[in-house]
Amino acid sequence: MPNFQAWISAHQLRFEEVLRQMLPSADIAPQRLHAAMRYSVLDGGKRVRPLLAFAAGELAGADIACVNYAAAAVELIHAYSLVHDDMPCMDNDVLRRGKATCHVEYDEATALLVGDALQSLAFQMLSESRLGNDVAKQLQMVKLLAVASGSRGMAGGQAIDLDSVGKQISVPELEQMHIRKTGALIRASILLGAHCGSLDQAQLDKLDRYGKCIGLAFQVVDDVLDSEADTATLGKTAGKDKDNDKPTYVTLLGVAAAKEMAAGLHQEALQSLSEFGSKSRRLNELADFIVMRKF
Amino acid sequence: MPNFQAWISAHQLRFEEVLRQMLPSADIAPQRLHAAMRYSVLDGGKRVRPLLAFAAGELAGADIACVNYAAAAVELIHAYSLVHDDMPCMDNDVLRRGKATCHVEYDEATALLVGDALQSLAFQMLSESRLGNDVAKQLQMVKLLAVASGSRGMAGGQAIDLDSVGKQISVPELEQMHIRKTGALIRASILLGAHCGSLDQAQLDKLDRYGKCIGLAFQVVDDVLDSEADTATLGKTAGKDKDNDKPTYVTLLGVAAAKEMAAGLHQEALQSLSEFGSKSRRLNELADFIVMRKF
Repeated sequence: MPNFQAWISAHQLRFEEVLRQMLPSADIAPQRLHAAMRYSVLDGGKRVRPLLAFAAGELAGADIACVNYAAAAVELIHAYSLVHDDMPCMDNDVLRRGKATCHVEYDEATALLVGDALQSLAFQMLSESRLGNDVAKQLQMVKLLAVASGSRGMAGGQAIDLDSVGKQISVPELEQMHIRKTGALIRASILLGAHCGSLDQAQLDKLDRYGKCIGLAFQVVDDVLDSEADTATLGKTAGKDKDNDKPTYVTLLGVAAAKEMAAGLHQEALQSLSEFGSKSRRLNELADFIVMRKF
Repeated sequence: MPNFQAWISAHQLRFEEVLRQMLPSADIAPQRLHAAMRYSVLDGGKRVRPLLAFAAGELAGADIACVNYAAAAVELIHAYSLVHDDMPCMDNDVLRRGKATCHVEYDEATALLVGDALQSLAFQMLSESRLGNDVAKQLQMVKLLAVASGSRGMAGGQAIDLDSVGKQISVPELEQMHIRKTGALIRASILLGAHCGSLDQAQLDKLDRYGKCIGLAFQVVDDVLDSEADTATLGKTAGKDKDNDKPTYVTLLGVAAAKEMAAGLHQEALQSLSEFGSKSRRLNELADFIVMRKF
């Protein structure tokens, strides 16, 4: 069995090709929009959400050809949210994954449409007949992703984030925001990967507990990295939360307590998977990776 | 059987209540986003796409409780596209359905998220278990709406529209743009309504032919109205296509030829339905309504 780094690299490489195939070619009309969609999705990012889907799929004994669609769907939703979040009316950021953001490389109107079209494409991927044979489960997956992306999930978390700028908010309020903004899609990634295989509800609940912990840990670590790293290492603008007067786990708790919180969530995530034994190896490793990453 | 105006009014009234129930309450978090979503969808519009879905559903013998979800899905997609199209980086419009556009009433970041969340909600509605018993067909409906909304459908048409500003384009190119920009969602409305009932493929193809004609006619009439009507009658800014130097059927063909084209498409739409006899009454009436409307 390959070590974790080899596993990650192999999946990242393979999945890049999957995305290349799934995204519409820049040769077909509307060419500029398709080129901008490809620019925004390809050649970038750690693919954390797809990796979580693949790891959960492995645990659930899923066919990887099916998990490809689930992983693409969550990554397309994630990519659309980055394109929209970077726009001038939102975070107004010029750098993402080490390159110019979509509205800088193209223009704002195109960035708006890129995000819109990527969201549609995500749902198209989940409705693909090649995803599997259980159409009832597939329809559940559509609902799961729609709820995780919408006003009670990711988009809602972003709205709470916008409203919180310059305000005093409590740690539970911050947690509520992140459970939606980042956590909802991370949980969905794991569940969608798992749905491609076969687990019972109790097992799915354990995976969901893992996802909830790891989603929150991901954000806490993000805040710590934003406060400590420099822009070159991060591949996106560092220190922007403080500059934007945004409440973060670091501004609310301090760096030390934020790191302690991440460590606690890390432990809880690992405990949630204890019954799965060696089957949860990749999810355990991903939990380590998410908490200990330096970028 | 009620006359056409009574049929329209009854469905509009009833469907308004359906949308009120389906949209998240402005009392639940994130309140401002939910209020802005409701502002953008409720109390406005002729609901042409839902009416087409209901008429196609009637023809196909569908349960109206199912068609409600299909009609809501297309209307939510339509509403999201209006919110995004009105934004400053796109058409920069301040008036829509007789009231301030979403980014004017709220702010640009909220308008961006409103559109994003409405799109997710549309797919959530199609994945509702209450839509029906045939999950395979429901999954097909998800795919149909995703393709109609995405880069090969509505969003792609909008991208071509943006690229065409200030350019000389031909009538076939203009048609290609509108087949995507407006036509794709109108066709989807009819097919989604029909999928809630039971029709064979040949019948669905005839309905799709009707949808293609009526979708294009809708746009031709829009162009004529934009060139002739005033802002108060239209409920949105009139004459803006000319001001924006956008190619339209009127600028390319002149008003008289554009009206002739609409009349031809109207006839072709009615012919496509001839085999259905009195069952297609509402779709026939809607074709008349779309072509002869004054606003």
